[in-house]
Amino acid sequence: MNGLAFEDLKVGQRVKSERYHVTEEAILEFARQYDVQAFHLDRAAADASLFGGLAASGWHTAAIAMHLFTTGPMRFEDGAIGLAVDELRWPTAVRPGDAMRLETEILELRPSRSKPRFGVVRIRNILRNQKNETVLSYIASAMVRRRSGAGN
Amino acid sequence: MNGLAFEDLKVGQRVKSERYHVTEEAILEFARQYDVQAFHLDRAAADASLFGGLAASGWHTAAIAMHLFTTGPMRFEDGAIGLAVDELRWPTAVRPGDAMRLETEILELRPSRSKPRFGVVRIRNILRNQKNETVLSYIASAMVRRRSGAGN
Repeated sequence: MNGLAFEDLKVGQRVKSERYHVTEEAILEFARQYDVQAFHLDRAAADASLFGGLAASGWHTAAIAMHLFTTGPMRFEDGAIGLAVDELRWPTAVRPGDAMRLETEILELRPSRSKPRFGVVRIRNILRNQKNETVLSYIASAMVRRRSGAGN
Repeated sequence: MNGLAFEDLKVGQRVKSERYHVTEEAILEFARQYDVQAFHLDRAAADASLFGGLAASGWHTAAIAMHLFTTGPMRFEDGAIGLAVDELRWPTAVRPGDAMRLETEILELRPSRSKPRFGVVRIRNILRNQKNETVLSYIASAMVRRRSGAGN
């Protein structure tokens, strides 16, 4: 196996990703497809809004975090199948030109009750911008493959 | 004002969106950009995975729900600024060709403590496919504009 398995993980383990640069065009493109609100689509409307300038959709920010997670140092054999996300927060807006980095911490590990070949990992993901401000944080549970264990 | 304001909302109010059709190409395109895992990118790998076939990224599904929310019947004057999401779940995978509809229910309404011109609305969003299976559900809090109230 090339990727990580459940057995490779430890509670308290932390990893950091590379930086992801977001452009104004990417913010506008995501918003046009998925979050059609003026403060994500139009600079003048964004300036007049509570954001005080163009800001990425919160779902775009979450998608960027997933990009960094799936291309980062904690890559799993057969991937990580998301089960649940809680405590999703966006304390600071993402702006054009921001360079973000994802920090992942393992909070909990347990065997899957229903799938003996999988374990459930609970992580905290924190996405920070170049000023070290948190732009996104959440707790996620996902199923990852075990090396041992029979059946599916 | 053309859109809804905080004063127009009632606890218990429910609205339904139109249907959103997702294609295999859209699933692959989102995954290539944001969720680079084999079961979202490649049909053979997806067949061999726990999904048993190509499935949309959970973050793509969430983005589709936001598209339906921001283009649907509950459109707010000056938009809805997301504060928090909890209890995000993906009980059933989204497949190529699925046609999904969003149901939104208002759970709670309160004035914003920090921004007198805004109210905070707490909603439950449930996204269902054409078989009426829930593919996504979550609870969200967002700030929306009040008609009355001074300052920002």
